[in-house]
Amino acid sequence: MGHWSGAVGGRRTLIVTTTNLAPSRVLADLDAHLEGDLEALFDLVRIPSVSADPQRGSDVRAAARLLATRLGAAGLDEVALLESDGHPVVSATWRHAGDAPTILIYGHYDVQPPDPVDRWETPPFEPTVRDDRVYARGVSDDKAPMSIALDVVASYLRVEGALPVNVVFALEGEEEIGSTSLAAVLAAHPDRFRADVVVSADGAMWRADHPSTMHSARGLLALEIDLSTASKDLHSGRHGGSVPNAIHALARLVAGLHDDGGGVAVAGFYDDVVAPTTALLAATHALPFDERAYLSEIGAATTWGEPGYGTLERQWYRPTLEINGMWGGYLGTGPKTVVPCEAHAKLTCRLVADQRPDRVFELIERHLLEHRPHGSRVHVTRHGEGAGAYHLHAAHPGLRAVLGALRATYGVEPWVVGMGGSVPICETFQRALGIDTVFFSFAVGDEDIHAPNEFFRLERLTHGRHAWADLLARLPLEFGA
Amino acid sequence: MGHWSGAVGGRRTLIVTTTNLAPSRVLADLDAHLEGDLEALFDLVRIPSVSADPQRGSDVRAAARLLATRLGAAGLDEVALLESDGHPVVSATWRHAGDAPTILIYGHYDVQPPDPVDRWETPPFEPTVRDDRVYARGVSDDKAPMSIALDVVASYLRVEGALPVNVVFALEGEEEIGSTSLAAVLAAHPDRFRADVVVSADGAMWRADHPSTMHSARGLLALEIDLSTASKDLHSGRHGGSVPNAIHALARLVAGLHDDGGGVAVAGFYDDVVAPTTALLAATHALPFDERAYLSEIGAATTWGEPGYGTLERQWYRPTLEINGMWGGYLGTGPKTVVPCEAHAKLTCRLVADQRPDRVFELIERHLLEHRPHGSRVHVTRHGEGAGAYHLHAAHPGLRAVLGALRATYGVEPWVVGMGGSVPICETFQRALGIDTVFFSFAVGDEDIHAPNEFFRLERLTHGRHAWADLLARLPLEFGA
Repeated sequence: MGHWSGAVGGRRTLIVTTTNLAPSRVLADLDAHLEGDLEALFDLVRIPSVSADPQRGSDVRAAARLLATRLGAAGLDEVALLESDGHPVVSATWRHAGDAPTILIYGHYDVQPPDPVDRWETPPFEPTVRDDRVYARGVSDDKAPMSIALDVVASYLRVEGALPVNVVFALEGEEEIGSTSLAAVLAAHPDRFRADVVVSADGAMWRADHPSTMHSARGLLALEIDLSTASKDLHSGRHGGSVPNAIHALARLVAGLHDDGGGVAVAGFYDDVVAPTTALLAATHALPFDERAYLSEIGAATTWGEPGYGTLERQWYRPTLEINGMWGGYLGTGPKTVVPCEAHAKLTCRLVADQRPDRVFELIERHLLEHRPHGSRVHVTRHGEGAGAYHLHAAHPGLRAVLGALRATYGVEPWVVGMGGSVPICETFQRALGIDTVFFSFAVGDEDIHAPNEFFRLERLTHGRHAWADLLARLPLEFGA
Repeated sequence: MGHWSGAVGGRRTLIVTTTNLAPSRVLADLDAHLEGDLEALFDLVRIPSVSADPQRGSDVRAAARLLATRLGAAGLDEVALLESDGHPVVSATWRHAGDAPTILIYGHYDVQPPDPVDRWETPPFEPTVRDDRVYARGVSDDKAPMSIALDVVASYLRVEGALPVNVVFALEGEEEIGSTSLAAVLAAHPDRFRADVVVSADGAMWRADHPSTMHSARGLLALEIDLSTASKDLHSGRHGGSVPNAIHALARLVAGLHDDGGGVAVAGFYDDVVAPTTALLAATHALPFDERAYLSEIGAATTWGEPGYGTLERQWYRPTLEINGMWGGYLGTGPKTVVPCEAHAKLTCRLVADQRPDRVFELIERHLLEHRPHGSRVHVTRHGEGAGAYHLHAAHPGLRAVLGALRATYGVEPWVVGMGGSVPICETFQRALGIDTVFFSFAVGDEDIHAPNEFFRLERLTHGRHAWADLLARLPLEFGA
C-alpha cells in the first residue's frame, strides 16, 4: 500500500535487452504445441463454470478438476483441490529452483453468468472462432490468460525439465462472486503459498494496440440509502403540496453529495487521499488519449468530475462517489397521482490510497444523516467490507520483470497505467502473504467480459505464451537471484 | 374559471329553515321503500362494471341497461343509452316543471378494478353488510350515491306525480377511465342536456362526522422527464468519476424544482395563481383540523410545502409540483458498479385558478431544459391534456340549495371545503353546457374507494334520500323560480 510514487515507465531497468530471454527450445515447443493447447483451452471453456449459479456447482468443480489434471500432467508437485466453504482453490507447486524467487501464479476458473443468452451470436459455452477471435463466456476472463501460464510452465518442464523460478499456483473458483474463500484457503496453507510476488493472469491490458500493465487499482465501498417520509403512499390530490415527498427529499440529498463543480461534498472525503506525484501525472498526461474519440465511443457529450484533473487522472488516481441506482414511487406506464413515502439509492465509491472503506463509510453516513431533508428518515446500509486501493511501487522488481517481458515481446516501451476498477485479491494477498501483485494478462479491456459475445484475440495467445516464457526467465534477474 | 371569492358558509341564504322542504308523503314513501331500494342497489353492485377491463364490456353495458330500466320504471321520459366510442351515457328527462330550474343529475355506473382481489375480506362483487356498512367494489364510488338520486326522483313521481324541478340524467360509464366520451355525448345532444346546474352524486364529503360540500377542485397536469448522459451504461471502475451520471443529473434537476423553503422554483409557475380571499382563508382556518392527528394518521413527522400557508390551504388553494416516481440504474439486490446512462421521473402538478395546463407545461419544460445539468440530454413528455382548476362562486344558487338541504338534514351548519384532487367533469360541463357543478354526494373520502374493502355507510343512505328530497324542493326557491 502506501503512496503514489515514481514516474511511469521512466525508470531504467537492469534488463534493457529486447531479446526474449526464454530458451529458444521452449519458444519452439510452445509454437509446436499451439494447436493442442488451444484444444485443451476449448475443453475448459466448454464447461459452464458459473460460480454465481448454485445449479452449476458440479460444473465449477469439473473445471477445477480439469485444471488439476493439467497441472499434474505438466509435472508439478502437490497438486490439490484445496477445499473451502465455497469452490476449491486449485493449487500445485514446483520448488526446485533453489535461491530463485518464488512466484505465485494467480488466475480463476469461474465465469460470469452468460445472460442475456439470446444476445449471443453463437452459444456461450461453445467456443467459436470468427475473425481471429474466440467467442465464448469466460474465454477472456480468465480461461485463456490463465491457460497461457499453465502451458508455459508445462513447456519448460517438458523441454528443460526445470523452471527458472519456484512456482506455486492459486487458481480460484470464486473471483466472480467476490473471492469469498480465498483468504481462508491462503491462511490454512501458509507454507504452500510462501512466495515473493503474485503474478496475476487475471486483469486486462488497457488497449489492444499497445502493451501495458497496471501499477494501481482503486478501492471500493458500496452502500444503500433508504429514505422515508410517511408510513404509506399518499394520494397527491388530497395530500399533495403539504407533506414531504420521499423522492424529492432523496433527490435533494443525492444532489448534495457533490458540489456544483463536480467534487464530492462529503466533509473529510478527501482527507486520506494521497495525490499522485507530479512525475506520475506527467507520465499519464503523455499517454495517447483522444478525449473526443472516448466521448464518441460512450455516446456522452462531455466529461464531468472533480475540478483540476483530466479524464485519466479522474479515472485512475482520484476517488469517486457514484449513484448506481435510485428508485421510488410509481415506475409503470402513464401517470399515477401519488406522493411516495419512500425512496432508495445505491452508491459506490472508488477509493485511492490511503482512504479506508470503514472511514469513508462513516463520513458518508454522517453526511447523509446530517443533511437529510426536514421530515425525512434516513437509513444507510453498507454492502460488504469493500476494499482499499492497491498501489505498486514503481521500482518493484516484479513490475520491472513484467515490463521487460512486454518489451521483449512487443519491441516497444510498454505503458504502465492505473486501473479505475478494484481488484480485492491484491489486498487479500498483501494481508495473507505480505506480497505485492503484478498484472500480466493478455486479455484486453474491450473484450466484452461480463457481457454477451465475450471474446479473446487469438494472436494474443502466441504473444502471451512468448511473454510468459520470457517473464519466468527474467524474474530471477530482476529479483537479484 | 373565476377567482376565489366570498366567505365560506358565512353568507345568509334565502332559506334559513332547518325543516325538510320535501312533502312528508315523499319522505314517508322513501322510508317505506328503503328495503326494496337497497335490494335494487345490491343488484347493481353485483354487476362487475369495470370500465378499465376490456373483458368486462358486457358487464358495463349490463349496468347501463339496469339503470335505464329503473329510470323507465320511475316514469321518466326519453330513456336512452346514448352511444359513444366507449361506454354509453344513460340518460332520461322529466321536463314538466314549467319555469322551475332544470338540474342535470350526474353519476357514473362504472367502477375501479377490484385488484388486489385477495385483500378483500368478502368478494368484491357480493355486497356484504358488516357493522352497518355495505362492503363492495363501487358501492361508495358511485353506485349508492347515484342510486339515492334515482330513488328520490322515483318516489316523487310515485307519490306526487311530479317533480319540483326539471330533470335530466347523465350517468356515464367511463368516469374511472377519464370520462373520455362524455364531452362528445353532451355535444351530440344539446337540447337534451340543456340545464341550469349540474348536481353531482359523485364526489365525497370531507369527513364522516360533519356534512360538507365542495366549492373548488384543483386542476391536473402530468408529465414525464427522460434524461440521458451516454449511449450505454458504463462500468464505474473504468469510467466512474469522469463522465456525467444520469441519476445524479436528474436528482439535481428534480431537487431544483423547489426552492429551499418549499415553494416551486419554476419561473412563472405562480403567475396565474389567484390567491384565495382573506375571508375564505379565515373560514378555512376556522375548520376543525388537528394537524398532529393528521400527521399521526399518515405516519409523517412534519408537514412541508409552500411557505406562508397552512396545511388545508396548501391542499386546497395552492398549486403543487409533486414527483410521483423516479428511477434509473440498477434496482436489484446488492451492489452493481455501474454509471447509469439514463434516468426517468414522473411529475404531476395540481393547479388552481387561473393556471392552465398548457401554460404550466410550457413553463416546466422550459425550466427543465434550461436547468439541465451539463452533459445531460432532457426530453419532457406530457401525459394527456390534464384539466384546469374548478371553482364555484360562493353565492351560486345551487351551492346555497345544497347547503340548505344539508342543514335541513343534519341540523348543523355544513362545511364548504376545497378539494385537493381534480374533477375533470366540472370543466367538461362548463365547456359543453356553460353551467356549474355542485357536489351532493353521501359517500365519505375515507371509504376505501379505489382500494380493497370499499364500503358505504348504511345510515348515509337514509340521510342522502331525505337530503335529495329536500334539495329538489329547495332548488326552485334558491334559483328564484
